[in-house]
Amino acid sequence: MLHTEEKLLNLEGRLHISIVMALFSSLTPVFIAIICVLIGAILKKTNGEKEKHETKSKPLSHPWVDEDLKDGTDHHSEEEVVDEEWQGLEENVAHVPFFAERYSEAEMIKRSQMFYELLNKRRSVRFLSDEPVPREVIDNVIRTAGTSPSGAHTEPWTFVVVQEPYLKHKIREIVEEEEEINYKKRMGDRWVNDLKRLRTNWIKEYLDTAPYLILIFKQVYGQLPNGKKKTHYYNEISVSIACGILLAALQNAGLYTVTSTPLNCGPQLRVLLQRPANEKLLLLLPVGYPKKDATVPALTRKPLEDIMVVM
Amino acid sequence: MLHTEEKLLNLEGRLHISIVMALFSSLTPVFIAIICVLIGAILKKTNGEKEKHETKSKPLSHPWVDEDLKDGTDHHSEEEVVDEEWQGLEENVAHVPFFAERYSEAEMIKRSQMFYELLNKRRSVRFLSDEPVPREVIDNVIRTAGTSPSGAHTEPWTFVVVQEPYLKHKIREIVEEEEEINYKKRMGDRWVNDLKRLRTNWIKEYLDTAPYLILIFKQVYGQLPNGKKKTHYYNEISVSIACGILLAALQNAGLYTVTSTPLNCGPQLRVLLQRPANEKLLLLLPVGYPKKDATVPALTRKPLEDIMVVM
Repeated sequence: MLHTEEKLLNLEGRLHISIVMALFSSLTPVFIAIICVLIGAILKKTNGEKEKHETKSKPLSHPWVDEDLKDGTDHHSEEEVVDEEWQGLEENVAHVPFFAERYSEAEMIKRSQMFYELLNKRRSVRFLSDEPVPREVIDNVIRTAGTSPSGAHTEPWTFVVVQEPYLKHKIREIVEEEEEINYKKRMGDRWVNDLKRLRTNWIKEYLDTAPYLILIFKQVYGQLPNGKKKTHYYNEISVSIACGILLAALQNAGLYTVTSTPLNCGPQLRVLLQRPANEKLLLLLPVGYPKKDATVPALTRKPLEDIMVVM
Repeated sequence: MLHTEEKLLNLEGRLHISIVMALFSSLTPVFIAIICVLIGAILKKTNGEKEKHETKSKPLSHPWVDEDLKDGTDHHSEEEVVDEEWQGLEENVAHVPFFAERYSEAEMIKRSQMFYELLNKRRSVRFLSDEPVPREVIDNVIRTAGTSPSGAHTEPWTFVVVQEPYLKHKIREIVEEEEEINYKKRMGDRWVNDLKRLRTNWIKEYLDTAPYLILIFKQVYGQLPNGKKKTHYYNEISVSIACGILLAALQNAGLYTVTSTPLNCGPQLRVLLQRPANEKLLLLLPVGYPKKDATVPALTRKPLEDIMVVM
């Protein structure tokens, strides 16, 4: 009798304990651990987004850095970037007297007038002959583009000159494939399209015929001697300005081109041309003479009063 | 005896059940619910980031639109934009034969060489004289910049020319105020700074002395005849290219400048110069002759082999 009663009391006690523990199972620590991990993941993502957002907006507010002010007029908030600005060179650059060409006022008016007339003849030409062009001219126009100013004098450009037929053809295949996909996507919206005329638009014969293709890459960052990343302030604006100088040089030399950015195939072209990860394709310029039967659209340019405001 | 035994069996049964249920407490559903909510939150954030990332990257993947292809090689995902591309004009533009100037190979080599030598003398000059410059030259160099190609021939630029001393001074005040704030923020990080030398960097005397300030605004969008917004493809690249042509024109005419983007004061300058909401300041070029004692930093430019890759 006693043994049974003892056992009874024992069981009752254990049952009470079990009921109390019903609120907290042996899996409870596991659940709590899982919850903590998930909360940690959420907080991490939230912080990551905030950082990404700040990082994305800051480059847009970075000012142009005058090329002779490498110790910068830039506004930086990232520690790393501030370090790079203050490194060496900038604080040690000597200033030297500058001697400039000086023309009479009449000469200036004449020169500026003639240069305008020369550049006003420039048109984008998509029908290029395969007639060869002297390589020396290409070298000179690219040297000229390289005289462009750039943020903090970073000179963040690479001009890739392609003349080899097989490689030009690979480029053409890549570009046309992307363009065709794009046109067909948009054609779905417009049943009144003239297919034949559209087809012309994604065929880029000039990529095969032009004697040279100049692919202009921007270096989105560089490398410092100590291995750290070097900020390339305003690299896109710098490289675009260099492209403007290149276009002036081409026109001056009697060569023609069309300024284009192949849709979405920048990365493929970067890989094809074996450019490093810090370079991104910005523009593609096929260069050569116009075909004998080349045409251009009948466009007009805005008059001076539409583009200039004097205060 | 029987009653006790029954009770014993009962308790043992309940204990077994309790032990089995020890794995799953009454809080278990609560834990599971919390875990589900947290997983849901994480998935939502991950999708949100993906969308944001795609949206942000799409404008960057918009291709340059050749100026004679206004019905566009652009890849658009916004419905509204696709509508604008197909409007009127593009499909009706006639093509006309293009006649180009043609030089002999020797001439081309010579012209390109001379143009390079001219442009290679260009430097950014921050010490500008107040000597007046013929207005006609300014008109011509801006006309020349206006010959630049642009995405879909949008010509998305406004060149604001400031010659009035009071207005130039207001611009100087705005710019210097921003630059000073910026320098002081960064100086906090660097106690070894030479204050006097830094002070020089935020003082922009040329904003008062240069006879002309050219403020280049980009039109981030335009307006169609029907009142809808007109997309200005690649407006920043277009305006930067135009700036490159402007720099070549200035150098050709014997005028000097420094390419700058005033820190953070774009909106203030837009308001001061009464430019509309669709315009944003991109670059500020003070234009004039160099001072007699002007200096430039002793910088060198990369040689051709460092900027050109031939394949």
